[in-house]
Amino acid sequence: MEFFFNPDGVAVIGATDNPFKGGYHILNNIMGGYGGRIYPVNPRFQTLSGLPCYASIDAIPDDFDLAIYFIPAHALPETIEQCARKHAKGIIIESAGFSEVGAQGQELQRKCLELARRHGIRLWGPNCMGLLDGHRRHVFSFMYTDVWKTLMPPGNVSLIVQSGMLSAGFLLMMLERGGVGVSKICSIGNKCDIDETELLEFLINDPLTEVIGLYVESITDGRRFLDLARSTTKPIIALKGGRSPAGAQAALSHTASLAGDFTVIERAFIQAGVTPVYDLNELMDFVRAFSMTRNVNPGNGAAVLTFSGGAGIVTADFLHDRGLSCAELSPATRSELKTVFPVWMEPSNPVDVWPAIEQSGPEKVYRTAARALMRDQHVDALIIHIFAALVKGEFLAETARLKDELGKPVAVWLVGLRQPVHKLRAELEELDLPVFDEIGRAVSFIASAKQRARKRGMP
Amino acid sequence: MEFFFNPDGVAVIGATDNPFKGGYHILNNIMGGYGGRIYPVNPRFQTLSGLPCYASIDAIPDDFDLAIYFIPAHALPETIEQCARKHAKGIIIESAGFSEVGAQGQELQRKCLELARRHGIRLWGPNCMGLLDGHRRHVFSFMYTDVWKTLMPPGNVSLIVQSGMLSAGFLLMMLERGGVGVSKICSIGNKCDIDETELLEFLINDPLTEVIGLYVESITDGRRFLDLARSTTKPIIALKGGRSPAGAQAALSHTASLAGDFTVIERAFIQAGVTPVYDLNELMDFVRAFSMTRNVNPGNGAAVLTFSGGAGIVTADFLHDRGLSCAELSPATRSELKTVFPVWMEPSNPVDVWPAIEQSGPEKVYRTAARALMRDQHVDALIIHIFAALVKGEFLAETARLKDELGKPVAVWLVGLRQPVHKLRAELEELDLPVFDEIGRAVSFIASAKQRARKRGMP
Repeated sequence: MEFFFNPDGVAVIGATDNPFKGGYHILNNIMGGYGGRIYPVNPRFQTLSGLPCYASIDAIPDDFDLAIYFIPAHALPETIEQCARKHAKGIIIESAGFSEVGAQGQELQRKCLELARRHGIRLWGPNCMGLLDGHRRHVFSFMYTDVWKTLMPPGNVSLIVQSGMLSAGFLLMMLERGGVGVSKICSIGNKCDIDETELLEFLINDPLTEVIGLYVESITDGRRFLDLARSTTKPIIALKGGRSPAGAQAALSHTASLAGDFTVIERAFIQAGVTPVYDLNELMDFVRAFSMTRNVNPGNGAAVLTFSGGAGIVTADFLHDRGLSCAELSPATRSELKTVFPVWMEPSNPVDVWPAIEQSGPEKVYRTAARALMRDQHVDALIIHIFAALVKGEFLAETARLKDELGKPVAVWLVGLRQPVHKLRAELEELDLPVFDEIGRAVSFIASAKQRARKRGMP
Repeated sequence: MEFFFNPDGVAVIGATDNPFKGGYHILNNIMGGYGGRIYPVNPRFQTLSGLPCYASIDAIPDDFDLAIYFIPAHALPETIEQCARKHAKGIIIESAGFSEVGAQGQELQRKCLELARRHGIRLWGPNCMGLLDGHRRHVFSFMYTDVWKTLMPPGNVSLIVQSGMLSAGFLLMMLERGGVGVSKICSIGNKCDIDETELLEFLINDPLTEVIGLYVESITDGRRFLDLARSTTKPIIALKGGRSPAGAQAALSHTASLAGDFTVIERAFIQAGVTPVYDLNELMDFVRAFSMTRNVNPGNGAAVLTFSGGAGIVTADFLHDRGLSCAELSPATRSELKTVFPVWMEPSNPVDVWPAIEQSGPEKVYRTAARALMRDQHVDALIIHIFAALVKGEFLAETARLKDELGKPVAVWLVGLRQPVHKLRAELEELDLPVFDEIGRAVSFIASAKQRARKRGMP
């Protein structure tokens, strides 16, 4: 599998100088980060982007590990034969026109897989966007932009996706938002050979990957997938497309996937400690939050630290929906809170600190309250509401330390005007405090982290 | 009720020159937009912000319609007596320290209400942030900022809220995001006299209000509230705080509200055509979207126009969750789509236009597909996915026209990098096409609009 991510030599079948074609972007993305030998292949060019261009694979003077294929589907069988002569180990097929287009494409895909197996060549795709490696800066994808050069910080998150968008535009949007760094992004398309389960195993063993997110339309080998999930301490967050009859039908024409019964899959996910999610932004929010959350105890008492009585109440309602309890505050916590609260106000949870802020100032109140709540033995998780103009990030440094030390996950609901929110979010996420735009999502993350902790604690 | 929004003379009890106090902001907010007579009252000042300041209410030389009260709670009874001598019609009590703080405050609140009734004075609050009138530019609130001057466009949305934040910081955040304009914002706090039901009636009769959003922790007169809701064609979107035991307990200490059984309330809401929501951002997203949606037919067939197979599948799954169907495309629509689709691709719903875009360009494909889908008699609503760099807004002008003409609501899921998203969102919302950040939310809006249309169609 390693040769897909770090090949010794790459041929680009279908490289071109036309910036409206994927073959142009594949070549230039590779050249933008990959330090090894690159062989553009296209009979129409002598050179491309300053590299010698080859009329055919046979014309390449050396062997190479990896070919990236972006010409019409029908030429794949011949290409496999040619790659075999160059002792290629793998081919990433980014073209469409295989199983997803019906019987003829299905037959072509079957035939190619058989041929590749005979030659010991592994196939990635077809009908996909290849891969991105954030640490090595290898981008083997036709995403037509090079914003990844500035927008893809290396990090601990890997994704396995059956949607090109999730490895291209949508991914970049999430990276621009900040708070997350990339280990490996794997767009697997029709996954005729390399599939989510084999990649899951690879990523579980990848020391640079700490969190794994998936968007899949089917799981080929469910038993093995779940065994792997149970075997690892790395959080796995999975969005399963095709939960509904119409969605399953669409999955068939998207990646030729057989969706399966979601009720069964969801239950199995939860039992194996896989966190199910349902929306695309939710997948990314959870991946980001898990990448900042290293230790979660199974207790289900939550505290809410808020500047708004109404928002506190809405949070309490969501905690209830998700089976978490509003922790009863210990006497020590109540005493601590009283040092900043007005005399007429009895501390309770949700902890509405607005009156205290008017009396003692926001930073002192937030620091005092967060410390007391994090140290309260009845509190197993903390949801903090912040209005961005009110405080700086550093006052929560201690909270950030305590969260992993005590296994008490923290989620911040951050509101305010655009500029101060942008600035404070970066400060909080620098401290590994995950930030959410919506109360329901923040609660949902805490609940899912707790659910996972309880499942993982069981033999 | 009119005198609260457009009084003939306003006294500010507790005006001050200290910008860290609410009394400063109340005075300066009023001066920033209100053209009538203003009487600051505070024995410590001769003048305030260039106005003569009065040592007491009795010292004011004229009568006035409205007093805004922001001094400690215990002085309210005396203030009511003094206001009566000036023939005041109403008092907005923004101070806290009443029913929400226990038995003593409860007794004080009861006594004040009795006194006010005796004098024919209406009370707004206490424990609230007063009101904002977007058309008149009247801001009778202690929100400590004057960004409202640039961030509060007049518009057709009114809110009734039992949360100060929703009428201040959170509101401004939503207004900065764009796509929504303000008619009346009413922060009602403990609502000892003026309550959500009386305001609902006022707003139903207000020609400048077309959509009404509520955040309430209780509904004082449920029967009358529901009768009013049934009587109007204006959309009413309601977030009920205190759905859970812990939330209900918190509501008691927030606004002294008795939360009630939410299962019963929710069912009654839906029957009366009130749209229930559960999160604060959801309330604002729905209010914004309803303010752009003037006509909704009750049919439940939806089409999805997408550039991403995966996102289309996720959308189909959410449609199923919310009881909407993926419409079977008519032969005419399929023929129309085939004019831009590659030959190998059979049109189906969700309509994945990525391959067509590669062949025919994004604007032509989106325009063709949106037109065909909007005119398809099986399609009753359209969800459009757009990647911001791909298209301009104007290509959807026809879609925007058709949506209200045919009663087919449209929701756009918009993704991409920050700058192009910001620009395109403004263009789309200028066309009254509501934009959502999340697929689930977009579907949820369409489903709620349809649910409301079905209820309203019944006798």
